[in-house]
Amino acid sequence: MATAIPRDRVFFAFGPDLKPIAEVEQGEEVVLHTHDCFEGQIQRTTDLVDELDWGHVNPATGPIYIKGVRPGDVLRVDLLELQVGEQASMVTIPGEGALGDVITEMETAILRLEGDQIVFKDKVRVPKRPMIGVIGVAPASGEVPNGTPGPHGGNMDCTLVTAGNSVYFTVGVDGALFGAGDLHAAMGDGEIVVCGAETSGSVRFKAEVVPLPGLPTPFIETKDLVSTIFSAPTVDEAANGAIHRMAQFLTDFARIPLNDAGMLMSLVGQLKFCQVVDPLKTVRFEFPKAVLEDYGFKLR
Amino acid sequence: MATAIPRDRVFFAFGPDLKPIAEVEQGEEVVLHTHDCFEGQIQRTTDLVDELDWGHVNPATGPIYIKGVRPGDVLRVDLLELQVGEQASMVTIPGEGALGDVITEMETAILRLEGDQIVFKDKVRVPKRPMIGVIGVAPASGEVPNGTPGPHGGNMDCTLVTAGNSVYFTVGVDGALFGAGDLHAAMGDGEIVVCGAETSGSVRFKAEVVPLPGLPTPFIETKDLVSTIFSAPTVDEAANGAIHRMAQFLTDFARIPLNDAGMLMSLVGQLKFCQVVDPLKTVRFEFPKAVLEDYGFKLR
Repeated sequence: MATAIPRDRVFFAFGPDLKPIAEVEQGEEVVLHTHDCFEGQIQRTTDLVDELDWGHVNPATGPIYIKGVRPGDVLRVDLLELQVGEQASMVTIPGEGALGDVITEMETAILRLEGDQIVFKDKVRVPKRPMIGVIGVAPASGEVPNGTPGPHGGNMDCTLVTAGNSVYFTVGVDGALFGAGDLHAAMGDGEIVVCGAETSGSVRFKAEVVPLPGLPTPFIETKDLVSTIFSAPTVDEAANGAIHRMAQFLTDFARIPLNDAGMLMSLVGQLKFCQVVDPLKTVRFEFPKAVLEDYGFKLR
Repeated sequence: MATAIPRDRVFFAFGPDLKPIAEVEQGEEVVLHTHDCFEGQIQRTTDLVDELDWGHVNPATGPIYIKGVRPGDVLRVDLLELQVGEQASMVTIPGEGALGDVITEMETAILRLEGDQIVFKDKVRVPKRPMIGVIGVAPASGEVPNGTPGPHGGNMDCTLVTAGNSVYFTVGVDGALFGAGDLHAAMGDGEIVVCGAETSGSVRFKAEVVPLPGLPTPFIETKDLVSTIFSAPTVDEAANGAIHRMAQFLTDFARIPLNDAGMLMSLVGQLKFCQVVDPLKTVRFEFPKAVLEDYGFKLR
C-alpha cells in the first residue's frame, strides 16, 4: 500500500528551507495527488486567465523528505504510474508564449478526457499521453519558482517525464525535498502557447540513491534510451548544454571514445525541444541504450 | 523509364544564373544519381578532412529545368525512391560542429551499408534511414552555397526529406532549376558533428506545380503530417520562424481559428531540430494531418 499525499499539500518554489510534509523510505512507493497548474482555478470556459491568482500557479505536491539521502547523492525517481483527471484546460494568453505576438484574444478551452483520448471542442480527438510538467528536488541554495526549470528539475515540461521512465536528480539538501505537479494529459514538444492539456491527477513513484556520482542531471532513462536535459535563457544555449552533457556521459560513464561518441551522437542521437516558452528554455538530447550496450555499458 | 542524370553533373551553389543540364516535363520521373557530400574524396579511414578540396563539397546533381514552371509558383517535389551506396563516411573536425570545442582529433570512419543496416566500426549496427541533405531550387537573386540552408531549400539536413514524402518550394526562376545531393544513410536530428552517414546514391522524383499560392515554403508533407521548416542564424530565430509559418498555414490554408491553431500546436504539434551546425540553423514544426481533416481541410 503506497503512502498517499493529498493534493492540498503544495509548494510554489523549490528551495532548501521548505518544510517536508512527509518522510518516506528509499524504495517506498508514494502517490502524490496533484492539482493542475492553475490549482483548480480554471474549471469552465468562462474562467479566463485575467482572473487568475498568479500566486497559485504551478503547485507541486510535497516536498517529500526521502530518508538517508544526502547532498551530492544522485537520486533515481522511478515513475510507476500517472493518472489524470476527467477534464483538462488549455488557454491562450495574448503576449505570452511562442505566438504571443499574434494571439490577441484570451480564451479558455475545456477538454474532455475520455478513455485513452482527449476531446478538443467536440471536433478533435487525440491520444492521451500523460506527462509531468513540474518535478524536482530542492537546490542547495536559492529559491526557484515552480514555473522555472533548472539543474534541480522544476518546470522542464519534458514529454519523456512519464510513467515507465526514470528521472535522475542530484540532491541539494538532506532528504532531497522532492515534489511534482502540473500534469498534462498530452503536450507537444515546444509547448507553443505555454500549456499542454492541463489537468489534475496523481503520480505513483519510488526514489532511491544510485551509485552514479557525477551523472549530468537532470537525466532521464526510458526502456530504450537515455537523455540529458538542459535549461538556459536561449534555445541555442540549452541545446549546447544538453549536447555537451550527453558527450560527457558517453565518455565518462559509458567509456565511449570521444570521437566515436560524437559521430554516434550525429548518427543516431536526437536533439529535441522540451519547451521554448518558460523563463528558461529546455532542450534534451536522446541517445539509444542499445549503442551503450555495444560498448559494454549498462546504466543498471 | 525515368530520365537519368549522372552524378558528375553537379553544381555547388543555388543561383538564378545556373545553366540547366536537363529539361523535364512536370510529372515526369527523374533519377538523380548523386555524389556524397565530399564528391567521393573520402573513401578510406586515411582520407582525412585536412586533405579535402573544400571547393568540392556538397555537390548537388542538376540543375534540372522543369518545363512550364514560373517564378512564384509552388512546386511539389514527390520523393519516390532513395537508394544509397555500399559504404558511408563520417568525420570529426576539431573546431567544427556542436562538439568542435572538445573534439581535438581529426578522424574518418568508414561505415558499411549492409541490407537495411549501417555498421559502425564493426561494433554498432543501426537501421538505415536514408534522407537527402541538400535539396532545393534556385533563388530569384543571389547565390547560396550548397552548404547553407534557406528559403530556397539547400542544406536543410531534415530527416523528413526522404522517400514517400513531398517537399514544396516556391519557385524563384523559370524552370525552377532544381537539384539535390548529399544523401545520408542515416542522421540524427541535430547533426552534431556536421555529418550523417555520408554516402553516394540516387533520388527518384517527380515535380509539378500545385495551386497553393502563398504556402510557407519550404514545406514538407508525409503520410501523416505536414511540416514547416525555417533556417536562421540562431536556433531561437529558426524555431520562431517555423512556429509562425505553421500558425500561418493553419489559419490561412486550413482555416483553423488562430486560438484553436495555437492550442492544437501546443497539444499535438512538435517543434523539432533539423540541424544546429550549418551556417544557418534549421528547425521544423510538425502538425498532424488528421487534425487538418477534422477542420475539413485536405492538402490535396
